[in-house]
Amino acid sequence: MSVVDLSKEVALGIDIGGTNTKFGLVNHRGQILTKGSLPTDQYSTPEAFVDALHEQIQPLIDEHCEGGIEGIGVGAPNANYYRGTIELAPNLPWKGIINFADLMTAKFNSPCKMTNDANAAALGEMMYGAARGMKDFIMITLGTGVGSGIVSGGNLIYGHDGFAGELGHTIVKPGGRKHWSTGSEGSLEAYASATGIAITAKKMRAEFPDSMLNQYPEEAINSKTVHECALKEDPVAVEVFRYTGQKLGEALANFVMFSSPEAILLFGGVIKAGDFILKPAKLHMERNLLPIFRSKVRLVFSELDEADAAILGASALVWEK
Amino acid sequence: MSVVDLSKEVALGIDIGGTNTKFGLVNHRGQILTKGSLPTDQYSTPEAFVDALHEQIQPLIDEHCEGGIEGIGVGAPNANYYRGTIELAPNLPWKGIINFADLMTAKFNSPCKMTNDANAAALGEMMYGAARGMKDFIMITLGTGVGSGIVSGGNLIYGHDGFAGELGHTIVKPGGRKHWSTGSEGSLEAYASATGIAITAKKMRAEFPDSMLNQYPEEAINSKTVHECALKEDPVAVEVFRYTGQKLGEALANFVMFSSPEAILLFGGVIKAGDFILKPAKLHMERNLLPIFRSKVRLVFSELDEADAAILGASALVWEK
Repeated sequence: MSVVDLSKEVALGIDIGGTNTKFGLVNHRGQILTKGSLPTDQYSTPEAFVDALHEQIQPLIDEHCEGGIEGIGVGAPNANYYRGTIELAPNLPWKGIINFADLMTAKFNSPCKMTNDANAAALGEMMYGAARGMKDFIMITLGTGVGSGIVSGGNLIYGHDGFAGELGHTIVKPGGRKHWSTGSEGSLEAYASATGIAITAKKMRAEFPDSMLNQYPEEAINSKTVHECALKEDPVAVEVFRYTGQKLGEALANFVMFSSPEAILLFGGVIKAGDFILKPAKLHMERNLLPIFRSKVRLVFSELDEADAAILGASALVWEK
Repeated sequence: MSVVDLSKEVALGIDIGGTNTKFGLVNHRGQILTKGSLPTDQYSTPEAFVDALHEQIQPLIDEHCEGGIEGIGVGAPNANYYRGTIELAPNLPWKGIINFADLMTAKFNSPCKMTNDANAAALGEMMYGAARGMKDFIMITLGTGVGSGIVSGGNLIYGHDGFAGELGHTIVKPGGRKHWSTGSEGSLEAYASATGIAITAKKMRAEFPDSMLNQYPEEAINSKTVHECALKEDPVAVEVFRYTGQKLGEALANFVMFSSPEAILLFGGVIKAGDFILKPAKLHMERNLLPIFRSKVRLVFSELDEADAAILGASALVWEK
């Protein structure tokens, strides 16, 4: 029996965003040996993009990884786990269905697995972060949009077609706020994303001329400025987060009654608002749960450094059984 | 290598309801060799109940099963898969937490697995019914209450504590109809159960004095009589089911965006209303889905005989890996 030195096995993790793509070489312990980035939106074809990735990354592999890489993990919007494709991603420059994993494997001569960015984040938390040792948890990413990754019995839920876990698009208020992109009415994302919070803040400050929020120009109203005002005890800013937390908590209660997780992990820029959102979220989650689920589910913040979490999550795809 | 004649292996399936308990000896093919029932509510202790079960069933085992039984599967309200317990079941005569699986194993000298009735129904459909060959589906039971069983990647989702899959208690209309038992506001069960349909029908007939539904006494208003009126083209009765179907469909859309199932199976007395409920359910499910999920999920009725489904489902626990 040979013993493998796990610290020497390295995965390439890549996180593709609409504007930027980040990558890193990561070992089993979640240490990033080296990392870098390139602008996603400057490559008109996926082939040109893969060429550019290879040109930047291959020298780093040669330098840092004695035996090459174990595999490639990619987190990308609308990525399909089963097919290794990126499908109809609205925020990426490449249209249609792209066989991205095949392109990567051909170029890097290494197996490539893909999933959407929130699923990758959930894997990253399970392997390196706050969900270590957990077999049942839900990851909610609260950023520009609201994403999710669901782990049940130790496995990520991919669903029949590889697209499971779009909790940001579940409806929390039928007939409610229209989503700026999907057109659906009353989705979680319409309220609990950074975009949704800005909309709520603009509405509420219009109703209360005395609010500190009125000291900012329209374009400066975002979850950061609302947080600043809330810290200064502006009651309208506090109410913006309370309302957001309520909608989030109501949605979380439904999620808990679906898969009964040990914990819900929150991640992303919005969680900087801390207890302003967390407390009402917890309250309204508990209030909407059946008694058998109450006071059981931990609501916690991610432990991963936000700058590296996406790379770590993508690399975790390589180690996934 | 010895070949086992699977048709000779027999499981004991037991379905515990608030009033009646049904049981059957079932082989791998889903054939019920013999079955019977006894009144749940006439035994003041679980021990007395298990004694009575044994007294009735052991002679049947001796008669029908050469080598004894392979195991016992029990479907019961508030049954916990991990602990083999029935916990705080509001509709059963026995209070507190009951170590039911241990009692059964001690009495029958055979391993016993338990889960709630809707989870058992989902297993039954996967093994013997409309979900054969499926790895990702959701079972919704529409009876007096609304139950659910969720299968993902070929496994039933039990969750961290064994209580996952209470989709009937997810909120479809925040601040909506108060549930007669849980007190929650706007749950799926408050609208889509037989109880919920009767409430909707009573409200709607009060608004429309011309409706055929007003020809029945209060206590005769139920999903069966509403169905009779709908078949006679009473527009109010049709609207009762359309409204129910809408609420169901909106809930189903949320479930699909959670686990992306291949199909949703509907089961229980309410589905006798057929297209009166199914068509609006399908319409509102599709309408609330993200484009990537549309026109993919089949909405189908159970294939199992309602009288036997609970026994078959419970017995399927024994064959579950």
